Amino acid sequence: MAFQKAKGTQDLLPAAIGTWQYVEAAARELCRRYGFREIRTPMFESTELYQRGVGETTDIVEKEMYNFEDRGGRSVTLRPEGTAGTVRAYVENKLYSEPEVAKLYYIGPMFRYERQQAGRYRQFHQFGIEALGALDPALDAEVIALGYDFFTSVGLKGVRVELNSVGTPEIRAAFRERLLAFLEPKRELLCKDCQSRMDRNPLRVLDCKHDQAHFEGAPSILDSLDESCATHFDQVRAHLDAMEIPYTINSRLVRGLDYYTHTAFEYKAEGIGSIDTVGGGGRYNGLVADIGGPDQPGVGLAIGLERTVLLLESQQTELPETTRADVYVVGLGESAAQAATGVAKRLRGAGLAVERDYGGRKMKAQLKSADRYEARLAVILGEDELARGEAVLKAMASGEQQTVRLTELEAQVITQLKEMDAQ
Amino acid sequence: MAFQKAKGTQDLLPAAIGTWQYVEAAARELCRRYGFREIRTPMFESTELYQRGVGETTDIVEKEMYNFEDRGGRSVTLRPEGTAGTVRAYVENKLYSEPEVAKLYYIGPMFRYERQQAGRYRQFHQFGIEALGALDPALDAEVIALGYDFFTSVGLKGVRVELNSVGTPEIRAAFRERLLAFLEPKRELLCKDCQSRMDRNPLRVLDCKHDQAHFEGAPSILDSLDESCATHFDQVRAHLDAMEIPYTINSRLVRGLDYYTHTAFEYKAEGIGSIDTVGGGGRYNGLVADIGGPDQPGVGLAIGLERTVLLLESQQTELPETTRADVYVVGLGESAAQAATGVAKRLRGAGLAVERDYGGRKMKAQLKSADRYEARLAVILGEDELARGEAVLKAMASGEQQTVRLTELEAQVITQLKEMDAQ
Repeated sequence: MAFQKAKGTQDLLPAAIGTWQYVEAAARELCRRYGFREIRTPMFESTELYQRGVGETTDIVEKEMYNFEDRGGRSVTLRPEGTAGTVRAYVENKLYSEPEVAKLYYIGPMFRYERQQAGRYRQFHQFGIEALGALDPALDAEVIALGYDFFTSVGLKGVRVELNSVGTPEIRAAFRERLLAFLEPKRELLCKDCQSRMDRNPLRVLDCKHDQAHFEGAPSILDSLDESCATHFDQVRAHLDAMEIPYTINSRLVRGLDYYTHTAFEYKAEGIGSIDTVGGGGRYNGLVADIGGPDQPGVGLAIGLERTVLLLESQQTELPETTRADVYVVGLGESAAQAATGVAKRLRGAGLAVERDYGGRKMKAQLKSADRYEARLAVILGEDELARGEAVLKAMASGEQQTVRLTELEAQVITQLKEMDAQ
Repeated sequence: MAFQKAKGTQDLLPAAIGTWQYVEAAARELCRRYGFREIRTPMFESTELYQRGVGETTDIVEKEMYNFEDRGGRSVTLRPEGTAGTVRAYVENKLYSEPEVAKLYYIGPMFRYERQQAGRYRQFHQFGIEALGALDPALDAEVIALGYDFFTSVGLKGVRVELNSVGTPEIRAAFRERLLAFLEPKRELLCKDCQSRMDRNPLRVLDCKHDQAHFEGAPSILDSLDESCATHFDQVRAHLDAMEIPYTINSRLVRGLDYYTHTAFEYKAEGIGSIDTVGGGGRYNGLVADIGGPDQPGVGLAIGLERTVLLLESQQTELPETTRADVYVVGLGESAAQAATGVAKRLRGAGLAVERDYGGRKMKAQLKSADRYEARLAVILGEDELARGEAVLKAMASGEQQTVRLTELEAQVITQLKEMDAQ
């Protein structure tokens, strides 16, 4: 009987992994430049953390969490998102007592029990950043800019930033009443989702893809902001302008999580069917206190890596080329195979990517293998040459061969590769 | 109420993450040189895979797995080790149909419900490699060499390779009888663990730390090998010699997993108390077929990253220095803060690590912050200078200041940093 991967999960195989490594390296490099440092929190946390930190009435907590009891009878949950765990670690490890803003990033798997559809997996991967400890609107803007730079630095085209302010919980409560007064008379005209959202989270109704026609004249949360919220929003915009980050204001943008305050934003992309949001985030000034920490503000974003990779593929973005091997070592016969092992080891020790044969194949098959690995040079070790203390060096592209002393082999290989690089 | 991480898990915080990134980069670089490519398999698999692929009577499967039912009622298990999932992916994705040996590596979390003790976590991390599709003893030797190179390349001292051959299942069965005949008369003299192992896995008895005195004259599995096994073992040793990898033979070495054939090895280290094995592996020629794949051989290793990091710390190994910031941008006043945002963005765009203030602090506090980040240069933006289109560039070490045009700022910063690098 053959085994299959668990439902909703995927294998990232060597042929595809290059894109992932490329995307993650871009994320790490931008974090270095912007001063975000990596944090790694566990794959599971107490279930209660997510009930409190994500929100009991969200889809995630209600329907999508992988909960289980550990052998001690404690209810734990595979992390459905990265913010709650990061904030828990910030509080538990007292990172707030350090003199500077805590600028943190994470890259890794998340788990949600979602309906299966193209590009959606139950184990998926996010790159996220969280900046904890400052109210400065420059920080909101830099978080947005880092995400935008991420998409452009990997080579994606057409990613747009949408920006909104969702004010404070008090402002949102008042706005909710005004909005419901506007929506109630239209309830029967709206789709099922909207009708259900009117009862659970009316602000998300305005985000509906089907019912935009009914929303003309709807109240805007931006008109409901108080002076302090409006000033924060204006300053975020000024800082974005100072960085020349393009954005559009979407007063109907509301994120799926309850904890956002002030800034909310999303990155939108075209080109992968119905999926259009590739990342987003916002400010969450109440969250740290909500999960038992001091009253410290925060702002962050999360970007879906599966979607980023899908977009790169659908836009046929050219990625940097990687070589599988610099040198292929051909060993002919048993004692030559051991010499091949020694030669391969020394060349690897010099920093080269080296492949060789593991099946006692004939010369022709080994040279074919060298081509498959796109090796630029082959080192050919035959019994006769070895007896004379020599090896043959073959340039795979030109076919040119040359006999070299074994004692000079390593230096010769390095010299020839350098010459090829220079051409 | 404050939340705590789940029992047995740990947070890897920014202050400690540098060591992890360093260790992982060393692993990835060696895999590049040796031609191993990354594979990422899901964090959980069907429970049955581990029952079959790790062994129903192993400690891992009997006592240590995190099993749970997903919402569809399927029993899944957080991966307790990396080999079963990698081999499952190799079979399911038909990687065996490719013309070359599949040389794969993984780095990531594993989960075992173990008793808590120093350096042991229930979520822990392994670097592992698996080479599937060749019987060549050169491959066993290169796997061992890669692990040895890993420990030396991160700077660890005193790591030793211990090597054994555990033959084939048939040879092991015959040896088990001989060994039991030797052990039975001594049963009452041995420790509890040994007595229990005599019934479950007698080969592991010889590995006991307490009872070595009773084992003099015990039969050796190396004397029980048939000609084919002995030849394979000899060739592995010859290839190790060709690479100048030092090792000692330990005929009592048996790995905890049942699936090994021929080569078995461990890396031993001193310096972290009772923990002495930091990694190990072996050949597993039956495993691929056992889990439903074609009859393809394999050989691999796994290295504990927590233990590697602990060893680096206990040996006080010096790691490469990393800078937190190249440049600190000081902005004084609100319009200067926006200019600071723009300047920081441009310097980051030029590849520099840039920090700045997010709290409207005074100049003195911001310069103190620049020192905390070990910035080499500070760019000081005051309202007056900005009005003249200028900024002040301050070398943090010498205190030297110079006024530069904003239009030349980026070029000046880069030039000065290069000069500092050259000194």
